[in-house]
Amino acid sequence: MYSAEQLKEIYLNYLERNPFTKAPTNLFEPVDYIMRLGGKRIRPILVLMAYNLFEKEVQQALPIANAIEIFHNFSLVHDDIMDEAPLRRGKPTVHHKYDTNTGILSGDVMLIYAYKNIAAIQDRTLVPDLIDIFNEVAEAVCVGQQYDMDFETSVAVTIPAYLKMIEDKTAQLLVGALKMGAVLAKTSAENVYNLGEFGRNIGIAFQLQDDFLDTFGDPVKFGKRVGGDIVQNKKTYLVLKTLEVANEQDQAELRRLMDSYPEDEAAKIERVKALFTQNRVPSMTEDLMKSFQAKAMSHLDNVTTQDVRKQALLDLASLLLARKT
Amino acid sequence: MYSAEQLKEIYLNYLERNPFTKAPTNLFEPVDYIMRLGGKRIRPILVLMAYNLFEKEVQQALPIANAIEIFHNFSLVHDDIMDEAPLRRGKPTVHHKYDTNTGILSGDVMLIYAYKNIAAIQDRTLVPDLIDIFNEVAEAVCVGQQYDMDFETSVAVTIPAYLKMIEDKTAQLLVGALKMGAVLAKTSAENVYNLGEFGRNIGIAFQLQDDFLDTFGDPVKFGKRVGGDIVQNKKTYLVLKTLEVANEQDQAELRRLMDSYPEDEAAKIERVKALFTQNRVPSMTEDLMKSFQAKAMSHLDNVTTQDVRKQALLDLASLLLARKT
Repeated sequence: MYSAEQLKEIYLNYLERNPFTKAPTNLFEPVDYIMRLGGKRIRPILVLMAYNLFEKEVQQALPIANAIEIFHNFSLVHDDIMDEAPLRRGKPTVHHKYDTNTGILSGDVMLIYAYKNIAAIQDRTLVPDLIDIFNEVAEAVCVGQQYDMDFETSVAVTIPAYLKMIEDKTAQLLVGALKMGAVLAKTSAENVYNLGEFGRNIGIAFQLQDDFLDTFGDPVKFGKRVGGDIVQNKKTYLVLKTLEVANEQDQAELRRLMDSYPEDEAAKIERVKALFTQNRVPSMTEDLMKSFQAKAMSHLDNVTTQDVRKQALLDLASLLLARKT
Repeated sequence: MYSAEQLKEIYLNYLERNPFTKAPTNLFEPVDYIMRLGGKRIRPILVLMAYNLFEKEVQQALPIANAIEIFHNFSLVHDDIMDEAPLRRGKPTVHHKYDTNTGILSGDVMLIYAYKNIAAIQDRTLVPDLIDIFNEVAEAVCVGQQYDMDFETSVAVTIPAYLKMIEDKTAQLLVGALKMGAVLAKTSAENVYNLGEFGRNIGIAFQLQDDFLDTFGDPVKFGKRVGGDIVQNKKTYLVLKTLEVANEQDQAELRRLMDSYPEDEAAKIERVKALFTQNRVPSMTEDLMKSFQAKAMSHLDNVTTQDVRKQALLDLASLLLARKT
């Protein structure tokens, strides 16, 4: 059984052996650029881990791991255009380094390459089922991105709608990674289902944690500037929960702050944090996160393979949900 | 055996029964808008015709026809953003009616729906081969669009490179439509190949004809303003051939005109037309077009089915390549 570190190494070697160096350069060089930009490679690792739960070697699963990572990077390239983001992993985004048209078209060809990689597996009888899972996940990611954009201008975002949005935008691709790895290993439908649910719940917990850390994290451990969501008036779980549980005065103040772009961002961040804290929303967020985490673990428990084989997945989940405060 | 008219009707009924009316509205309404915008529906008709060469009824082929039409419209939505086109079929383009972000994301979900439709066929054992054909075609369309954009700023576009570009950008999707229809009908690999080559050669001939008519067509019969390519300094076959065969003086004049955006567009159009004509490029273009047309016909001849079944395809090809001058 391989560790996350080993699987990352195996995937990166595969990526190195399968570069995007075709012509036309203006189409494929940006693909190569974003694919080499680094990142934790969580999603391809999850594909390999799910496969490795049932199979000793993971070579067969590498095209699927690659499909999932290419899709993830495709979605980053197009999202970065939509969000007008200049930087990704500390480097220029594709549409900033090249231009918007390049971002659109190179992104499109990446989505096609995700499907090409799925079709490249050895046992082709599995292709239809893998394509079905992937189609569902890919559509959900688009739906999640649309709701995320819709929420920016929507006055009344409900908590269930928010949770559905992060499930679609973030968790579904983890679901897809795990289910596709499991299907490729030809395990039982029940194992495929439980691994998918493990991914769904870990994914939602991870995004809630990310919301929490954006405000309450240690900037060094979190690796990002803290308070960014507050500055941008993002309707995170912290905001929506505060608007639900706070008294009218606090609600009104939070709404006022969330309509403002003051020069003194630090003061705004402090005030919003105080509103979260005095309404005990941080601990409510942690409780909710933990309930998703517990659900994830119970689904992993139900996966029928030797317990020792589950260790790598458990380690990765712990790493993803580490507190960093 | 169905005529083109009948197959169009069958496809439009199917489209009517399968609208894009899901939530979120901001994602799917633009898809529904572009899919209903009309057009000749050549590509889905080609899928159904290829299938109908070997099978009496065409219902089984409708998801593939839809996949091809959705993909075609996806490529229009993204190309219109890249080309900054305000109008498509006389109506606002998606990114003009909505916005650029909508054009990007609704386009993305359309590409995913093309794959969903392929996976929706009844005999799922055919999915892997159909996905392979589709992946190749979809990549070629992106490659063709990239070269088309590259050629705008490239000083030396060769005729072979130009022909490859129109093959990728325009002809390949006709190849895909015909091959996928044929594969679905489980005909021989040779028939699949010959139908593909028929589509490739018809597609190239059609694009050469389109280049020719943009300059020499009857505006009423052609349905577009004439001379648009000249005004935009597009490096069409007419231009590239003139630069190849003309004397130095004519070449220099054409190059000069192709670097200019004069106020008097009509005078420029007349002068460029004169340069084409005095170098006998119109007849050379027609000859080349006819050679592709002849190649297409010989491939159709080689398809083994009753000759009477080929009539609808022949009629459609004649319609596509009608002179309109």
